[in-house]
Order: sequence, then structure tokens, then C-alpha cells
Amino acid sequence: MTQKIAILGASGYTGAELVRLIATHPGMEIAALAANSKAGQSMAQVFPHLRHLDLPDLVTIEEIDFAGIDLCFCALPHKTSQEVISALPRDLKIVDLSADFRLRDPDAYEKWYGNPHAAVEMQGEAVYGLTEFYRDEIAKARLVAGTGCNAATGQFVLRPLIAGKVIDLDEIILDLKCGVSGAGRSPKENLLHAELSEGYNAYAVGGTHRHLGEFDQEFSAIAGRDVRIQFTPHLMPANRGILATAYVKGEAEAVYAALANAYAKEPFIEVLPFGETPSTHHVRGSNFCHIGVVADRLPGRAIVVGALDNLTKGSSGQAIQNANLMLGLEETEGLMLAPLFP
Amino acid sequence: MTQKIAILGASGYTGAELVRLIATHPGMEIAALAANSKAGQSMAQVFPHLRHLDLPDLVTIEEIDFAGIDLCFCALPHKTSQEVISALPRDLKIVDLSADFRLRDPDAYEKWYGNPHAAVEMQGEAVYGLTEFYRDEIAKARLVAGTGCNAATGQFVLRPLIAGKVIDLDEIILDLKCGVSGAGRSPKENLLHAELSEGYNAYAVGGTHRHLGEFDQEFSAIAGRDVRIQFTPHLMPANRGILATAYVKGEAEAVYAALANAYAKEPFIEVLPFGETPSTHHVRGSNFCHIGVVADRLPGRAIVVGALDNLTKGSSGQAIQNANLMLGLEETEGLMLAPLFP
Amino acid sequence: MTQKIAILGASGYTGAELVRLIATHPGMEIAALAANSKAGQSMAQVFPHLRHLDLPDLVTIEEIDFAGIDLCFCALPHKTSQEVISALPRDLKIVDLSADFRLRDPDAYEKWYGNPHAAVEMQGEAVYGLTEFYRDEIAKARLVAGTGCNAATGQFVLRPLIAGKVIDLDEIILDLKCGVSGAGRSPKENLLHAELSEGYNAYAVGGTHRHLGEFDQEFSAIAGRDVRIQFTPHLMPANRGILATAYVKGEAEAVYAALANAYAKEPFIEVLPFGETPSTHHVRGSNFCHIGVVADRLPGRAIVVGALDNLTKGSSGQAIQNANLMLGLEETEGLMLAPLFP
Amino acid sequence: MTQKIAILGASGYTGAELVRLIATHPGMEIAALAANSKAGQSMAQVFPHLRHLDLPDLVTIEEIDFAGIDLCFCALPHKTSQEVISALPRDLKIVDLSADFRLRDPDAYEKWYGNPHAAVEMQGEAVYGLTEFYRDEIAKARLVAGTGCNAATGQFVLRPLIAGKVIDLDEIILDLKCGVSGAGRSPKENLLHAELSEGYNAYAVGGTHRHLGEFDQEFSAIAGRDVRIQFTPHLMPANRGILATAYVKGEAEAVYAALANAYAKEPFIEVLPFGETPSTHHVRGSNFCHIGVVADRLPGRAIVVGALDNLTKGSSGQAIQNANLMLGLEETEGLMLAPLFP
Repeated sequence: MTQKIAILGASGYTGAELVRLIATHPGMEIAALAANSKAGQSMAQVFPHLRHLDLPDLVTIEEIDFAGIDLCFCALPHKTSQEVISALPRDLKIVDLSADFRLRDPDAYEKWYGNPHAAVEMQGEAVYGLTEFYRDEIAKARLVAGTGCNAATGQFVLRPLIAGKVIDLDEIILDLKCGVSGAGRSPKENLLHAELSEGYNAYAVGGTHRHLGEFDQEFSAIAGRDVRIQFTPHLMPANRGILATAYVKGEAEAVYAALANAYAKEPFIEVLPFGETPSTHHVRGSNFCHIGVVADRLPGRAIVVGALDNLTKGSSGQAIQNANLMLGLEETEGLMLAPLFP
Repeated sequence: MTQKIAILGASGYTGAELVRLIATHPGMEIAALAANSKAGQSMAQVFPHLRHLDLPDLVTIEEIDFAGIDLCFCALPHKTSQEVISALPRDLKIVDLSADFRLRDPDAYEKWYGNPHAAVEMQGEAVYGLTEFYRDEIAKARLVAGTGCNAATGQFVLRPLIAGKVIDLDEIILDLKCGVSGAGRSPKENLLHAELSEGYNAYAVGGTHRHLGEFDQEFSAIAGRDVRIQFTPHLMPANRGILATAYVKGEAEAVYAALANAYAKEPFIEVLPFGETPSTHHVRGSNFCHIGVVADRLPGRAIVVGALDNLTKGSSGQAIQNANLMLGLEETEGLMLAPLFP
Repeated sequence: MTQKIAILGASGYTGAELVRLIATHPGMEIAALAANSKAGQSMAQVFPHLRHLDLPDLVTIEEIDFAGIDLCFCALPHKTSQEVISALPRDLKIVDLSADFRLRDPDAYEKWYGNPHAAVEMQGEAVYGLTEFYRDEIAKARLVAGTGCNAATGQFVLRPLIAGKVIDLDEIILDLKCGVSGAGRSPKENLLHAELSEGYNAYAVGGTHRHLGEFDQEFSAIAGRDVRIQFTPHLMPANRGILATAYVKGEAEAVYAALANAYAKEPFIEVLPFGETPSTHHVRGSNFCHIGVVADRLPGRAIVVGALDNLTKGSSGQAIQNANLMLGLEETEGLMLAPLFP
Repeated sequence: MTQKIAILGASGYTGAELVRLIATHPGMEIAALAANSKAGQSMAQVFPHLRHLDLPDLVTIEEIDFAGIDLCFCALPHKTSQEVISALPRDLKIVDLSADFRLRDPDAYEKWYGNPHAAVEMQGEAVYGLTEFYRDEIAKARLVAGTGCNAATGQFVLRPLIAGKVIDLDEIILDLKCGVSGAGRSPKENLLHAELSEGYNAYAVGGTHRHLGEFDQEFSAIAGRDVRIQFTPHLMPANRGILATAYVKGEAEAVYAALANAYAKEPFIEVLPFGETPSTHHVRGSNFCHIGVVADRLPGRAIVVGALDNLTKGSSGQAIQNANLMLGLEETEGLMLAPLFP
């Protein structure tokens, strides 16, 4: 018996990625697709690469009968998301891919996102969706908040080091490189091929990127004290992929051991042999995350590099991994697709 | 009960693509991987994107015990392929991805490939592996010759028009654009990122591309007379994808009807609504082929555009489609992966 | 004594390309830059790559005092262009880069652009700006209409063949591949990096691209009879470059001779050795056009391939070449920059 | 009277870039081009983008008569370079683009390059070619050693901060992203378009990149004590460009002031307004370097980002800037080309 799935915000990249993955997921079936701005169109018109699938046409959210839906993915912009989710049936299982329920503290939300939260009571209910670290809570949750894609990458690299007390908590630098699809499908000048191809640049420099809210919340919780990292993202001339280079102070062997132990049984996290580092090209289109550790020539310092696909492990793949748990399915179901290389 | 698969030539792109697809194929299991130049290495060393899979290490062809193998994919260079296949057990099912058994006429082989064929008797046995048009023969075959990737695309676009007698056979022009992975993984100056990125050019201009041997053989057989098309390939600054633009003389409606009828029940060939044309980006990483037809402003002329992924539908996906038939499996098994976009 | 230059529409790619070229042009000096939507900003804000130049800030067109201007480049959208140019001083030398004055016949203009021409009397005055073929008229002109970038490429490839009567005029097919900068800087979904990178597709298929108006006008004028070619452009995952592949019926040697003779003394047109074809990568950022000819295996047919940079030789370089003539400067002045490779 | 120039190693990317720049340099003329492996070929065969130039054919180094040469650029691989230069006339002015004369200490050379230096006596004579900081010595030098491209970028970002004592010398992290042309034109698997496009990765992680030898030498000399930075380069899916992100401990305002003061009169170094950071796309193909400073959210920390083109300002443009000084020409002559964008 397959689970009936609805996707709200199906006309964006994370919506399309959900459909791509569910297309070969044996336990899920797409029952409704909503995209208010494109309601009435077929998915083949909006995303021709999904043309071969037998999919329902796009409708408005209001048109969906949620009675027959087992789980709803919400791939809407932040702020819109909290408004929409507030109005959905209170017993509907929801995986939200927006930023709206990631931060547990309403003040932190307002600080990073600029508006007061409109569904504060649901913030408390939501479980943070970093599957590998919140597995049990997610399995029991009704509302799961998907993490930021950069936030996921940084946490995969750093959580075991903070938890294992193998690095200096006041000296963490995260230099991150991410592909352009993370910025979404809305036409903006700086996302044009002509502007981006053959060039690269930093953005949100100085500690202003919103995913820092997640780092602060999670790393401080693990450490039992305030942890504030330095984080600088860079925009890459590529469509998919996040490469996170972390500079930490600690013994590289201890750093490696903390990661290798933490992920020894994880189906989607691959810790490379000591001294090797990953490439985004080798995880593209998959739910895998590769992590490598190298000792720096400066004693007591290590470099940890993590790579994942922002649209898959960083958002829609993670969302399905969480949904599998919430629906009582095998966690890896539908997610073992090998990366596309080249 | 899964079928035991061997792959010879596993260190090239088509070899890796076979592994990628078999990784989630429920009816196949990889039992042996050979790559003489990299024997002794793990697949993770040669292709880190396959690191998560539990695969046998690379061995030499001589080390494989073919007794336990149900079907062997041969992804070796042409000429090597015929020598290796000649020496394999005569009852082993083989899908050859090289050019060695595509041409039925030994003289045609020598003309296009420059050397006399070393296994002429097996040329007669081999079935041409364009699944949609040789389905029954393939199901019964022991040795199937995978088509050229450009040859597959051109034939998907043109075969129904030639068979349906809806175009002038002496006025067919095929302008083809293909991604760089079709040229393989051997380091060559013109395939470097620095040489290719941001540029594009024609190659093998004037009717010298070897895939013309396949066009000549197949189109002449369909027409019952000699057919010689004009064919010019172009190298694109992209990794995957073939876009074939065919200029034909015939009524566009009749052209469209011939294609729509021919492919109405095909699971992997999508004929777009009349007047629309495809993009390679919408078939990437998948076994689908999209085809569109437009009437030109000049009366009696039509443009037909086909798109597929050279490594999937153009070679390794096709190979698995054929292997499914040869092994009595469902033809589409393991091949319904949706394209990766963006 | 340097000539004082104004550029209207300086915030688009052709405007920026004019500034780039004039930056090292010894005979020109930028006196005014207009971009109504960005008036008040510095050029460094709009185009950071021009930061090192000492340029006037952007103003509205109305703010420019044309009394001190020797020549004005108009790089505005079509339709806007004719309105603006109508209101400029009648003795001001103008090179218009838009489509507004390319077509001499008002009906042809309305047919291709969809609106009646608002400055019909100036259409007659304007000289078509394909420098190599209208050199004398351009030198005497007040108003020169820059050609379409695709139209320029196609004409470089085909004009000498039509004039030389070496090809069949009813059997000309032009398959063109162009980079994305030709579509301008306005944010549109299909021009996003995530949509375009790693994919390619045909567009304006069937003879609907507006540059056909130029082909029809010019080729018919040369031939002394109606000439209608088939023309299909394709969008490339690259920023700059046009590659035009022409399929013609004629003897390749005669085709080659016609081109070699026509361009023997041209400083910017390079005819390659017989049998070689060009790459867009080898003309990028320059005012050069490379042309190659190959005989097809089908007797009596030839393939001619031309390559140029759409922003340089296809628009802004051509515009400066024309301006040099209009101002009595050396035609090649400021334009001998070598292509940027890789 | 133009200066007669010879280029040894003209078949590589830095050789081609020298020719590109000299093509429009009013004070230089190419008298000889050597490339032993391609001797006898024309430059148009090796680099078709230089086809329009009237250049001498490629010869072997032995065939050049250095009597008529005013200055020789040596763009050979390291180790070869020291052997060749040892055998050149002792009064010939030379700009070496290899690594052979960058390190003044023979032991440091052997440590980083793995072989004893074969021309130790010339190491002492050579002047380090970072023009902005060795201007006077370069003007008087006979032999100038061009810097590493990564080394140049890192030094532009960091030298004024070290000299100005505005940062903690023991806490410097340099995360660098560089385009693929820096790796040269030799075909290697990891430089193929299919391997690199759409992916990115770190390399030489842990402090093993040879340019660290230059950082150690120069930063220690400035500081008057040993300085060892952390340095991790990353390979980008782009042809040109280096983006260096430096994480430093110091007050951002002081950091900014140190840079702004150091470069206030430099023609090629642009310090952006405080709080802005550069893109490689905005310096491509030019001799400019853009630098930006941002204060981090963590007090007492700043991020400094520098961007330049590895083939121009990072090697061949720098080489010509140095040659201009050595020949008594204007330092900026031939180098004011604006960047190519898009």
C-alpha cells in the first residue's frame, strides 16, 4: 500500500526534486501537486524533464482535499510556509522544506528572517530535520522542519567534532562553496548564466547568512554553551553541490576518529580514507554526503571537507528520508540512487 | 533471483554508467568488474561517486570465471572488443557497447574503422541493439551490438520518416550537437575543460564520422535502396546530451504523425506536442528520448529535433534495456529513473 | 584630438562591451553614459569589471547635452530605439545597435517586429551596418543600423556565395548555435544558469526568428530575386559566441574560392585553410570572424562554418568599426584586441 | 623603436597569453617563439585564436639568435627552466614565469620542488617579480622570477596586513579557489571537461601546495620572524580566475585602511568600498586585482577577499608589467585592457 503524497510549491527546484525522487520510490505516490502561480498547468509544462510521469496537474493549495493525503511536503518560500501550514489540518503529517520551523526560538527567527513568526505555537511542535541526529524524534513527529542546505553540510562536518570535544569551539571557520540551484528558480540578474558562468564570488560575507541561525542553535545545544562560528558562503558556476571546507583546531587523528565513529553505520554518510577529500561532482543527484579529513602542516590544526548535493541530501532527499521515518517506511527507501557522474 | 553481471571495461564512462544503473536495478547484481589497466584497484578509487556501493574490485578479464555469469557487458574500445569477445565462452550472453558488431558488412566495417574485422563470423550472429526497432531479435540474441550514441539519436528521429515514406530520402540533413562525455575518459588536449568550456565547434565535418556507417546500413535497409544523409556533429561545452536537428523535406503534419504513431506505446520515447522542441537538459541522466517537430516557414519542409543522454539512452541505458530483454526481465526494469534537472 | 562619445543604454551587455572596447581606443573618449533605469548610479555599480575606468556616472538621456558629442551609440531595446533616435538632434552621428533601422521596408519591419515603425522617414536614411559590405555608404552616413548578431554571422558565411552564384539559392540551410549573452541582461527563467548550464536546445524553430527579416532583405537584394533560407538557432550553455553551420549545394572548391576572394583583404575576416572549421572559443572577445569550408561526402554539397563573438563582431565591435569610418578614423582602430583563450 | 621579444615555451597557456597581450602592446614586437615539442608548426596551428597575427613560426630554443633579442620570456616548466636559462647569454634580460627562481634559499627550493637547484648562483641574482612590492629592484634586474599565481593573489591580500601589523600573524587562513587554466595544457584526467565541469573540490590540502614556499619566504621577510599560514586551494569549474578568501584576526577597519593605503596609487589594484567583495568574473582577461574587506560578526575578525586572473595578473600580465620596467617602458603599457565580461 503506497502512501499518498501532496507537494505544495511544486514549481520550484526542491518541488521538482521531490517529484524526481518519488518517481521511483516504491512506497510513495503523488496524489496532489500545488503551485498557486502555475495552477492549471501540467507538470510537463513547468518541468519538461518530468514529462514521462503520470502526474496530477498543478492546482492551488485550496483545491487539495487533504483527507486522502498521508503526508504533505511543503516547498514554499519562508514566511508563506508558516501561513500555509497554520491553515492545514492539525493531524496532517508535514515535512516543511522552508526556513520557518528550523529555529526553535521566536526571537532568533525574527533576528535572522526579519519578521515576527506567525505560528509560534507550531515552532515548538516542529522537530529539526537533520535525520542522522534527530532520527527518533522525527519518527514520532507530525511536523518536521527541513534544514538549510548549507546548514546541513556544515553540521555533518562539525557536529561530531563539537560533541566529541576534539576541537576548539571558539576557532571554527567554515568556508562554503555552493551551486546556484540553492538560490531557487526566480529570475534574478546575478543568477543568469551570463553573470555566473566562468566566475565565482563570496556572498553574505561577515556572518550575515541566515543559516548561521541554525548553526548557532544546534552547535550551542550540543556544546552546552554558546558557540559562534565564522561562516562565509561562495557562489559557484555550477548547478548543484555544496563543498564545505572547515578549518578547526584539534588533532587531525582525533577529528577523523570522531567523524568515522559518528557515521560508521550511517547509510548516506561516507567518511573517506584519512587524507582524502571529496568533490561535489561525486555526490551529484544523490542523497550521499562525503567527508574527508586532512592534517594541516601547522600542528594541532585540521581541515575537514564535506560534499553533498544541495537539492538532494541538502533538501528534498533529506525531506524524503524524514518522511520515510514518519510513515514507518525503511529510512533509505527510494533514496539509494547513485550519483550522476560525469 | 538476480542475474549475475560482468562488466569488461569498467573504468570508462560507459562502464561507470552501467554500474550506476545496475546499482538500483532489482534484477541484476554485479559479479565481476574488469579493467586491465586498473586491475587491483577498487571501483571507489577509479570512480569515487560509486564509493557507497559494495562492488568487487577491478580485475583483469583473464581473472573472471565466466561460469557464474549470466550476462556480460563489454565496454571496451573498438577493435579490442572483437578480440576479447572472440575469446569469451560461446554460450555467454553479451551486450557489446563498442562499434565492433554494429555493421553487418565486413567491408563497411573496414571502410569506417580502418582495419579488417577479426571476428567476421560473429558479425553475422550479432543483433543491432536499437531496442525499439529490433526488440524481438534482441530477446532471442546471444550477442547484441549497442549502437553509436549519435547513431541512436539520428535513427530515433529519422527511422519512422523513412519507413513511412513521408520525406525525400535524398535531402536529409542531420546537424547534431553532443556533450563531451561521448569522447571518453582518455586525456586529450581538445577535451580539457580549458579548451572546451565556453566554446563549441563542428568536428568530423564532411561526412567522415564513423556513425555514418550505421546510418547508411540502417536507412538503406529500411528504404530498400541506398540512402545517404548529410551528417555534421558539433562538440558542446557540456558533459552529457545529444541534440539532433534534422532538416527534412516533407509535410510537417505527416512527419509528426509518423513519429507519434511509431512511438505511441514506447516507454522511453516521448513525442512532444506539435510545434515544441526538446532540450538535452530535460533528459539528462535518464533513458528517455524527447522528440519534437516544427513546420518550417518554407512549404514542404520540417525540422525534427531529438534529445537524449549519450551515456544513458545512447549507450549504457540502452545496453541494460537490451540485457533486460535477453534475460527475460521486464524491458523497463531499473531504467525508469527520472532525468536530473537542473 | 579624441572624439567625444555618448552611449545610450549603457547598462546592458552591448553597452558594457562598447565601454570595454572604447577603454583602450586611442581615438575615442566617453563623454556621456545614459541608462534611464539606473540613472544616478556609477558604472562601477552596474558593471564592476569597469571599475578601474574614469567614467561619467549614468544619467537619463534627457540630461545629456548632445552639443559636445561627436557620435552617439544607441544600445536600447528595439521600439524604444526609434522613439529615442527620432528625438535626437538631426545632425548627430548615430550608430544604432537595435533592430529598428535594419529593415528598409516598413512592412517588413512591422511583419517581424509586430508594431508599425514610428520613424519611417529615418528608415530610409539609415545605412545597414554590415561594414565589410557597406563600407562606403557607412563612411558617409549619419545614421547606421547595426545588424543582428546572428544576421551578421549568417551573412559573412553566405553573401559571397550568393553574389558569386556558386550555390543553389533555394537550398540554403543555416543551423546556428549562439551563446546566452545575445539574449541580454534582463532576468528570465530560461536564461538562469541552473536552466541553461549543461543543456542546449533549439528556439524560434520553423523560420520565426526576427533576424530572418535581415536575411531575406539582404540575400534577395544580392541575388536580384527573392531568396528565403531555412534558419534554426540553438541556445548554447556558454556566454559568448555564434557558430553558424551552413549547408549549401554547390562545389566546395568554388564555395571556398568565393569566400577566400571576398575576404582576402579584410582585416577581421579569416578564411581558414580548406577543410578546417572554426571554434567560437578562438574568436571570443574579439572583432574577428573565422570561416571554414568542407566538401561533404555527397557530391555537390558543401558545409560552411562561421564563428564570431556576438557581443563584439556581432554588435559592439561592429558598431565601433562603423563609427571609426563615420568619424574618419582608421577602420581597425581600437579593435585589434586578440581573442581571449582559454 | 619597439623592443624585440622572444618567448620560450610558447605552446602553453602562459605563452599564448603573452602573445595575446603583446599583440596590442605598442612597445614590444615578437621576434622569436620557441616550443621544442612543436617546433616547425605555426602559432595558428597551436593556438588558432592567434591566427590573425603575423608571427614567426615555432622553433627550438637552439635555433634562436639571441643577439637581436631585447628581452626573453621563459614560460617553461620548472626544472627545465633553470637548465635553459643557465645556457642563455648572461647579458640577456629574462622574465622567467616558472617556479625556478622564486625561492631565494636553495634548501627551500629543494624542499618544495623535490630536486636540488641546478643554477644556485643565478638564484641569488633573480629578483622576485611581485611588481607592486619589488618595483625598484625589478627595474634594475637582469633576471626576474615571476611569482606563482596563487602566491600573487595571497600576497596582494595579505602583505599590507603583515607589514602594517594589523593582524595576528599566527592565525592566518587562506582559502583559495582557482580556475583550471592554472594547471596548464597537458592532458590529465582530472582536468577533462567531463571530470571538472559541474564539480569542485579542494586539492593539495594540508599545507602541501608549493606556493607555500613563496608565502613562507615573503611573509617571514616582511614580519622579521617566521610566518606560516594555512593555505587550501580549490579547483573551480571555470577556465580563469583566482578568488582568495583570507580569514584574519584584526580590526576590519584597520585591515581596510592598511590595504587602501598600500594600493592607493597602484594602477592595477582596486580596493573596493568597505563591505564589498569581488568576483573573478570582473577581472577576467585583465591585469587588474580587486580586493574587498568585510568585518565578521565575531569581533576582532575580518574577511579579506581578492580576485585576479591567474593567466594575466597572476602570470603573463605580471611578466609584461615587469618587462616594461626592465626595458624602461611605461609600467602599464599594453596592460590596460578592460576585463571581458560576461
